[in-house]
Amino acid sequence: MAEATGITLVDGRIVDGVSADDRGLAYGDGVFETMLLHRRRPVWWDAHLTRMERGAAVLGIAAPAPSVWRADLDALLVHTGEAANHVVLKLMLTRGSSRRGYGIDTAVVPRRIGMLSPAPVSDPRLRVFGISVRWCELRLAVQPRLAGIKHLNRLEQVLARAEWTDPGVHEGLLCDSDGGVVCATAANLFIVRGGRLLSPPVDRCGIDGTCRAFLLPQAEVCRLERNDVLTADEVFVCNSLRGILPVTRLEQRRWPVGPVTRAQMARLAAAEPAFATESP
Amino acid sequence: MAEATGITLVDGRIVDGVSADDRGLAYGDGVFETMLLHRRRPVWWDAHLTRMERGAAVLGIAAPAPSVWRADLDALLVHTGEAANHVVLKLMLTRGSSRRGYGIDTAVVPRRIGMLSPAPVSDPRLRVFGISVRWCELRLAVQPRLAGIKHLNRLEQVLARAEWTDPGVHEGLLCDSDGGVVCATAANLFIVRGGRLLSPPVDRCGIDGTCRAFLLPQAEVCRLERNDVLTADEVFVCNSLRGILPVTRLEQRRWPVGPVTRAQMARLAAAEPAFATESP
Repeated sequence: MAEATGITLVDGRIVDGVSADDRGLAYGDGVFETMLLHRRRPVWWDAHLTRMERGAAVLGIAAPAPSVWRADLDALLVHTGEAANHVVLKLMLTRGSSRRGYGIDTAVVPRRIGMLSPAPVSDPRLRVFGISVRWCELRLAVQPRLAGIKHLNRLEQVLARAEWTDPGVHEGLLCDSDGGVVCATAANLFIVRGGRLLSPPVDRCGIDGTCRAFLLPQAEVCRLERNDVLTADEVFVCNSLRGILPVTRLEQRRWPVGPVTRAQMARLAAAEPAFATESP
Repeated sequence: MAEATGITLVDGRIVDGVSADDRGLAYGDGVFETMLLHRRRPVWWDAHLTRMERGAAVLGIAAPAPSVWRADLDALLVHTGEAANHVVLKLMLTRGSSRRGYGIDTAVVPRRIGMLSPAPVSDPRLRVFGISVRWCELRLAVQPRLAGIKHLNRLEQVLARAEWTDPGVHEGLLCDSDGGVVCATAANLFIVRGGRLLSPPVDRCGIDGTCRAFLLPQAEVCRLERNDVLTADEVFVCNSLRGILPVTRLEQRRWPVGPVTRAQMARLAAAEPAFATESP
C-alpha cells in the first residue's frame, strides 16, 4: 500500500496479509493493543505491553519479549515519515496458525502483527464542551475468565457500536447482564460523586483500560448502576487514544464539565504531552 | 502451499493470506461453517449456507448468494484431486476490511474465505464403543444476541478445550453461568430419558448445530442440568464432521451404546452416506 500508515508487519516482516489459518481470524484467539504514536514515541508503551502479556498469559499464549516488540516498532518507524508524529499503533498477538479445531497443537507458534493507522480525528471542542453519550441496549455477557484483558473476541462491542448512527452521539454506555454499568463501547467510564472518583469493576466483563489504570490511583472501583450515572456530579470516559473526554450529555441529562474532570485532564496532560497537544 | 488441502480462496481468488485489517481478525466480526466434503459433494450444503445467512443477518453482514459460494467451492475442487473424497470445507464470511474502530464504515465490503483441510482422523471404534467425556470448568457466558449462530468469537471454546490433554478424553461438556448444560466444546449434546430424546436450548449460548437440526424433528428441546445428564439412559454428542458419537463414559459414569442412539445413528447414515462409510 502507498500510505505509510498502511504498512503491516507480521513477525517482523512487511507483508500483504496474514495466513488464513491464523487462529486470531478463526477464533479470535489472541490479544491486541492500540496506542498513540506521538512524535515517534509510543504513549504508555510499558503499560500496553504489560497488559498484553497479562492477556496472553490468561489465554496461555507465550508473549514475546518487549525488545521483540520494540524491534517491530522500529521497523514500522523506518517506513513512516511525518505520519509518525500522530498515528495509532496497533499490535496483535495471536496463537498462530494451526489445523482446524479448537485444540491447541503444541507446535503452534504465536504470531506478532503490527500496524499503523491514522489517529482518530479529534475535535478539540470535545474536550472543552464534552461529548454526548447514550445507553446501549446490548448487555455485556458475564465471563470472568476473559474479563479485563483486551482479547480479539469483540463482537459485543461491534454490535453495541452499531446501535446508533447519529454522528452527534459520540459513545454508548454498556451494562452487563446483571444491570451493572461497565464501560463505553471503546472507553472506560468514571463518575464523580461527592468529590469521590468512581469507576466500575472489570472483573466480570469489560477491559482494564490503560488510561483507566493511570487514573485508578486517585479513584475507587465501585459497582455502579444506571441511576448512579444519571445522578452523578460529573461523568467522563477515557481511553488510550483520546485520553479523557468529559460527558456533558446522556440522553436527556446534561452536565457541565466539572472540576474533578478538569483536574484529571490537567494531570493527564502533564504526565503525557500527547493528550495536551490538541487543546484549542 | 503444496498440499491441495492447503489452498485458500479469498473472494474467489487463490491467495497467500488475508488482509491484516480484516475485521474477522480484528474483532471476530464474522461467521463460519465447517462441513464434510464427501466424494466431492458438500454434506448438508443448504443447511450450512442457511445457518451462515442467519448468522450474517444477526451481525448485519450482507451474505453472498448461494451461487457465489458454489462457485468458490467449484474453484477449490479444481485444485483438489483425490483429497476431495473426504476433507473438511471451511467457509468464513467476515465483515471485511475497515479502519480501526468498532464502528462499521458503510463502504465496507464483506469478505469470503474458503479453505480445505484434512478431515478429522476417525477411529471407527468410537462409533461402536463410544467416547469418553468430561465436565469443563469454564462456564459459557449468557449472550442471547449471539447465541445459536456460528460466529468467529470462539475463545470460550478454545479455553474449554485447553482444560484437558488426556487423549483418552474425547470431548468436554459445558454448562452456562446459570448451571444449564449446553453442549460439548465442538458438538451438540443429546440425552435419552424414558425413551424421549432431549437436547438443551441454544438461545442463550451455544451453537445451533447442523447435525442437531437434523435430529431435532425427533427430539425435544429441554433445559438440562448436570444431574439430568448423569442420570440419563443414553447420552450422545453430534456435529457435522463426525455425525453422532455415543458417550459411554462421563468421568465415573458408564453407559452402553443405547438403542435410541443406535437408531438415530442408523437414520443419519441412511440420510447421509458420508456418516456411514467408516463403520468397521
